[in-house]
Amino acid sequence: VSARVVTLLTDYGPHSEHVGALHAVLVAADPEIVRVDFAHDIPLGDIRFGAVVLARLALGLAQAVHLAVVDPGVGSGRRALAVRLAGGGCLVGPDNGLLGPVAVALGAVRAVELPVNPGRAATFDGRDVFAPAAARLARGEDLERLGTPVNPAGITQVRVPRPATSPGVLKAEILGCDRFGNVQLAARSEDARAAGLVTGLSAEVTGPGGRGAAVVARTFGDAARGLLVVYLDSHGYVAVAENLGDAAARLGARAGGALTVAVTPAPAP
Amino acid sequence: VSARVVTLLTDYGPHSEHVGALHAVLVAADPEIVRVDFAHDIPLGDIRFGAVVLARLALGLAQAVHLAVVDPGVGSGRRALAVRLAGGGCLVGPDNGLLGPVAVALGAVRAVELPVNPGRAATFDGRDVFAPAAARLARGEDLERLGTPVNPAGITQVRVPRPATSPGVLKAEILGCDRFGNVQLAARSEDARAAGLVTGLSAEVTGPGGRGAAVVARTFGDAARGLLVVYLDSHGYVAVAENLGDAAARLGARAGGALTVAVTPAPAP
Amino acid sequence: VSARVVTLLTDYGPHSEHVGALHAVLVAADPEIVRVDFAHDIPLGDIRFGAVVLARLALGLAQAVHLAVVDPGVGSGRRALAVRLAGGGCLVGPDNGLLGPVAVALGAVRAVELPVNPGRAATFDGRDVFAPAAARLARGEDLERLGTPVNPAGITQVRVPRPATSPGVLKAEILGCDRFGNVQLAARSEDARAAGLVTGLSAEVTGPGGRGAAVVARTFGDAARGLLVVYLDSHGYVAVAENLGDAAARLGARAGGALTVAVTPAPAP
Repeated sequence: VSARVVTLLTDYGPHSEHVGALHAVLVAADPEIVRVDFAHDIPLGDIRFGAVVLARLALGLAQAVHLAVVDPGVGSGRRALAVRLAGGGCLVGPDNGLLGPVAVALGAVRAVELPVNPGRAATFDGRDVFAPAAARLARGEDLERLGTPVNPAGITQVRVPRPATSPGVLKAEILGCDRFGNVQLAARSEDARAAGLVTGLSAEVTGPGGRGAAVVARTFGDAARGLLVVYLDSHGYVAVAENLGDAAARLGARAGGALTVAVTPAPAP
Repeated sequence: VSARVVTLLTDYGPHSEHVGALHAVLVAADPEIVRVDFAHDIPLGDIRFGAVVLARLALGLAQAVHLAVVDPGVGSGRRALAVRLAGGGCLVGPDNGLLGPVAVALGAVRAVELPVNPGRAATFDGRDVFAPAAARLARGEDLERLGTPVNPAGITQVRVPRPATSPGVLKAEILGCDRFGNVQLAARSEDARAAGLVTGLSAEVTGPGGRGAAVVARTFGDAARGLLVVYLDSHGYVAVAENLGDAAARLGARAGGALTVAVTPAPAP
Repeated sequence: VSARVVTLLTDYGPHSEHVGALHAVLVAADPEIVRVDFAHDIPLGDIRFGAVVLARLALGLAQAVHLAVVDPGVGSGRRALAVRLAGGGCLVGPDNGLLGPVAVALGAVRAVELPVNPGRAATFDGRDVFAPAAARLARGEDLERLGTPVNPAGITQVRVPRPATSPGVLKAEILGCDRFGNVQLAARSEDARAAGLVTGLSAEVTGPGGRGAAVVARTFGDAARGLLVVYLDSHGYVAVAENLGDAAARLGARAGGALTVAVTPAPAP
């Protein structure tokens, strides 16, 4: 049954007609396909954040067909791909980096380049190229029937800069922010450990447009009101939040900017 | 069949990855589960409005499993609950008031406290605690297998202040506003009757940030353009709207603020 | 199987409780109904844009029941309709123009006026009148059992003004804008041809609140950064975009405003 699950991730906007068009293609191909909307609020054209979100959500549905379209280069030279994964699942989307992390995480074993009809509209490959391919895979068609074999090791990767750590200091790039104003960093638990960010310490957080006092803690409610919280989020990333507040607004955080967490020395006794 | 329906209500944001993560858990457990998104645009952390919306939507699907997460205290001391309802349905969510009105409306007959793994991430109980419990209930598992029995009469209630009425005047708290700028009050038809708000009367409405002339009417189009409309909404609440306008903006309405409707004396003959 | 597909299009807002209420009605009637959200972000009360979007998305699911509610006149005199289409599908919604283009495109063969219970709430016909009718049609009930037969040729049409063309100039009304800032015009490929807008030409685009240099091209990436792109969109409409930018903001575009594309003379040699 799991072969009939198709997940969707785009930057098309929640409940927009573009999302509806993808669903319509899938249902027209087979109303029995189980459709799962992963996310449609990816910031416009933010391939890197889309790739990160796709990789972590796909882990829970490793046998599904994952249809992902964050594609600012639609109609230009980037390849359109369909990929078979080690666990039985598939990926379908543009080869612009979006599929890179999930291809590594779930193991790309075969890949084909999807043909693009030069006579068609050039601006909606999600509807015209990717969704039809996802529907065919969900119905059990062989990957090789969909296009020309290419090397699965050649799938484009997004570049996520490594954080810089020194004793008591972590400097990392901002991956993205959510509706709660939680700021997710391109840093993971091992980076927090390397910087000595231990639960209970005080810290100062400096973002692109603001700064604030913080505590390193396990969850939001562990901080007094008004304090920022530096924590390991539910995906294993270092994140900054404000309990009942909006850390992203307070720090002027935006994807691609840098954020520094510096442990605050205890006051002299 | 109805036992396999799971509804979802959160403040995670429309088509956000957090919503996608809940769906992924349900589908991974059983792709045959029928998923119904009740709402994901509940204002951030607004437990009371989430509770009101959940209670009225759940009435139409009394045998479903209702998964609800508006949970500003995630990771703190509040209990995680699963509840069996008189009509065969279930509730799953935090015991912070969100489940209170629906537990009363549909009759909570048994309840268990869900165990929380202290080693897990502390910030996404929706994915890690509540959605897995909802999936197990949807698949027919016994409530008692999910946790420790607790008293179903002890489910936390939200407090909704009672409106104040006097002849010709209704003063009530604002429960919430929708995309149309319609303002919903914590007052019901009997309160409107007690204040003598009868269809056809003129009134003045005063909100936290503005005021306007109104008519008491049955629907939006019953008022001349530019006039506010005081009406009984489709859920039985007193509400204020502006035909083809945005009453919430005009009145500066926000959840928790107060709003007064005062009948305007007819001009002397 | 396709008779069990119900599509939904509204201006209720993404993942709002109003959308949830429609889904709840459908699932309560029959959990096996396959539900497809076409769009819920139609600008508030924009009947014309809703009608255009509905018509193009419905083409791909011609046998489905299409439930559409953009209904600023709810509770007023406009009729509530259910319509049988030539290909086997159905339409359900207010007779305010929203159903006009799709009724023409897919061929309305029979229609009934749905009864409206005068005792019910007057503000949520989507939940109380239209969704129940859609559910009954999806379950195979005869159209004639739902209401009183009316002339299918009398379905209200929206008026979309024709563009004005002269050599090198296209002036058209703005139908709508999407999340990407792409501006869709009430003009189609034949209008672009009539105005001589040929791929590769330079042009100036003037909108209600701004102007910019453009190229006539096939897709976004065909323009240098900062240039606008005039193109034929994936639905066959003339549209204006900015590669990696927001054309709607730059041109001050809003539905109902006018936009002019004028071919720029080549500089004298």
